[in-house]
Amino acid sequence: MNGAGFHEWLGALATERDKAGLRRRLRVRRAGDARIDLAGNDYLGLARDPRVIEAAVDATRMWGAGSTGSRLVTGTTELHEDLELALARFTGAERALVFATGYAANLAVVTALADADTLVVSDERNHASLIDGCRLSQARVAVARHADADDVDRLLEGRDVPRAIVVTDGVFSTDGEVAALAELHATSRRHGAVLVVDEAHSLGVLGPKGAGLAVEVGIQAEPDVVRTITLSKALGSQGGAVLAGADVIEHLVDTARTFIFDTGLAPACAGAARRALEVLQAEPTLPERARERAQQLARGLGVPPPSAVVVSVVLGDAHRAVAVADRCREHGVDVGCFRPPSVPAGTSRLRLTARADLTDDDIEHATVVVLDALRSVP
Amino acid sequence: MNGAGFHEWLGALATERDKAGLRRRLRVRRAGDARIDLAGNDYLGLARDPRVIEAAVDATRMWGAGSTGSRLVTGTTELHEDLELALARFTGAERALVFATGYAANLAVVTALADADTLVVSDERNHASLIDGCRLSQARVAVARHADADDVDRLLEGRDVPRAIVVTDGVFSTDGEVAALAELHATSRRHGAVLVVDEAHSLGVLGPKGAGLAVEVGIQAEPDVVRTITLSKALGSQGGAVLAGADVIEHLVDTARTFIFDTGLAPACAGAARRALEVLQAEPTLPERARERAQQLARGLGVPPPSAVVVSVVLGDAHRAVAVADRCREHGVDVGCFRPPSVPAGTSRLRLTARADLTDDDIEHATVVVLDALRSVP
Repeated sequence: MNGAGFHEWLGALATERDKAGLRRRLRVRRAGDARIDLAGNDYLGLARDPRVIEAAVDATRMWGAGSTGSRLVTGTTELHEDLELALARFTGAERALVFATGYAANLAVVTALADADTLVVSDERNHASLIDGCRLSQARVAVARHADADDVDRLLEGRDVPRAIVVTDGVFSTDGEVAALAELHATSRRHGAVLVVDEAHSLGVLGPKGAGLAVEVGIQAEPDVVRTITLSKALGSQGGAVLAGADVIEHLVDTARTFIFDTGLAPACAGAARRALEVLQAEPTLPERARERAQQLARGLGVPPPSAVVVSVVLGDAHRAVAVADRCREHGVDVGCFRPPSVPAGTSRLRLTARADLTDDDIEHATVVVLDALRSVP
Repeated sequence: MNGAGFHEWLGALATERDKAGLRRRLRVRRAGDARIDLAGNDYLGLARDPRVIEAAVDATRMWGAGSTGSRLVTGTTELHEDLELALARFTGAERALVFATGYAANLAVVTALADADTLVVSDERNHASLIDGCRLSQARVAVARHADADDVDRLLEGRDVPRAIVVTDGVFSTDGEVAALAELHATSRRHGAVLVVDEAHSLGVLGPKGAGLAVEVGIQAEPDVVRTITLSKALGSQGGAVLAGADVIEHLVDTARTFIFDTGLAPACAGAARRALEVLQAEPTLPERARERAQQLARGLGVPPPSAVVVSVVLGDAHRAVAVADRCREHGVDVGCFRPPSVPAGTSRLRLTARADLTDDDIEHATVVVLDALRSVP
């Protein structure tokens, strides 16, 4: 037997993906590559900021290469505690709880805050980690039409369980669209539902000093709002966190499986994120600079101006999207190429991200390369 | 409304956990704490090894504080590639694929390798991440009695779908028990099933030079064996990996959601794990030293000798387990205290882990403290 049927099955699936243009290849970044990166999520350029890097170095030397255990056993250092206090202060939350990844934070929130007596209303374009959270939870899940508060209202109206949570990306990761948070919150409140917002792509980008979308809208301290963030995008590190009231955080500490059963975030990552927050506070124009770069990019490419820093160029066909992205890459410009299942079928696209530290020359050169690639691939 | 019902619900659950002795508190490690750590999973002491720490430092300075994107976008550096090659070589696998956490690696394997036409047979005491993988997958899931190959046989026998995978911890994390891997593999093969083994607690601990349980049993290169590991235990860092044949790895790259939609492992963690592997190869007696320390501990405490390095002292009642662990802690010895849902109801326990770098004095002192705590808490 030798698992022959298993390998045949894998082979058949690979052939199907080949035909659909859905094979993926790991491209390796080489040391000393001089490229323009419009693909990553290091929106403020802090992953390479010397201050952030040296904070990671110091944290590693002080606390070791790993956190050695679950946050509940040995994986919580003073550094983790400091980071949580700083995150809460910066975002106007009562408390923050740090996870090893943003994915883990999202799984935790949805699974721990929704039980069988809860309806979860989830935007159809939410990030995979929120969707997986819905799938893992014991709650009833209703998928709302994208960015449609009326549909959320209708779904909440029809519920027959005592509790509900509404789950949305703050900035949708593939197209950069910003959720109508004030409206979603009003709708949620009308129905006594809790609003969960993933600020992965809005922290450090939107809101005063980059404090995020909930702060911009003024709902950060509301008792019916829970936020998640990542430390791996604008903060240039790795990890995620939940921002919420003390009772929510204590509930997660007691029950969230991705908190209890995962090794704590590595000290290097906690230290880097902590310092990145300080840099962001010391240089409050960073978010604005990143947003301005995104506007420049969009103008150059003739696509609608983004509200955050993700610029989406929808091409439709997966094969064409891959070919255009490859051509950009050959000319020294890295762009994201998003295909199903990352985006809905038939909407394969380039995803370009701006960074605060891009220069006018970078933007100009990148625009020429992308436009040229679009023209040259039919 | 203000989410009042939600907070009342959280409050009621907290009260229930209080009564059941199931509240958890984050204990913060302070810099300069001089304590004996029998709680973490840094089995070889490599998290604090200067060589491993300096490798994390070098990686951060070379590649930045974060990997800046999904492994498929910008999150794969030469360092990630090197680490994967080294992991595969060390463990006798064709390929390795690195994830941001071991939790993510386990979710990936179960969800991507099992579809609606697959039966997943999962040991009832498997790690939470494997269980969540089962819950997330579209497969039919059958839970096998703990460490019972006959039950696995029976469940595979009764299947009415074309494929099956058998999922097991290599070393069960809470009690340190070692799976009967040869027997499980024979059973799996008889039924044409693929065996998935989580080597989180066996890599660096069991097998020749710490290469793990599958290598010890000689099934590491079999086409019907897939392994997962963590980089956060014996390797002292953070992250996880899947070890498998090329077709499995390519399937994961194309389809595994926790690979595609998660930021790549931070360079510091990749660099530390890479160096830890080298240290382990240069000092092949490290695993043996850790195991010997575990034997000493078990002898001193009068509990059965462990096969790996996890020593379990089952106490039953959750309140007593907490009180005993607290008393150990007051006397400078950190021990794990595992309660439901980490362990089955009524089997709350101390979980002590050995480390290669513990001294005779450490073991002797720790034994006295734990025995004293057990005596003093009725």
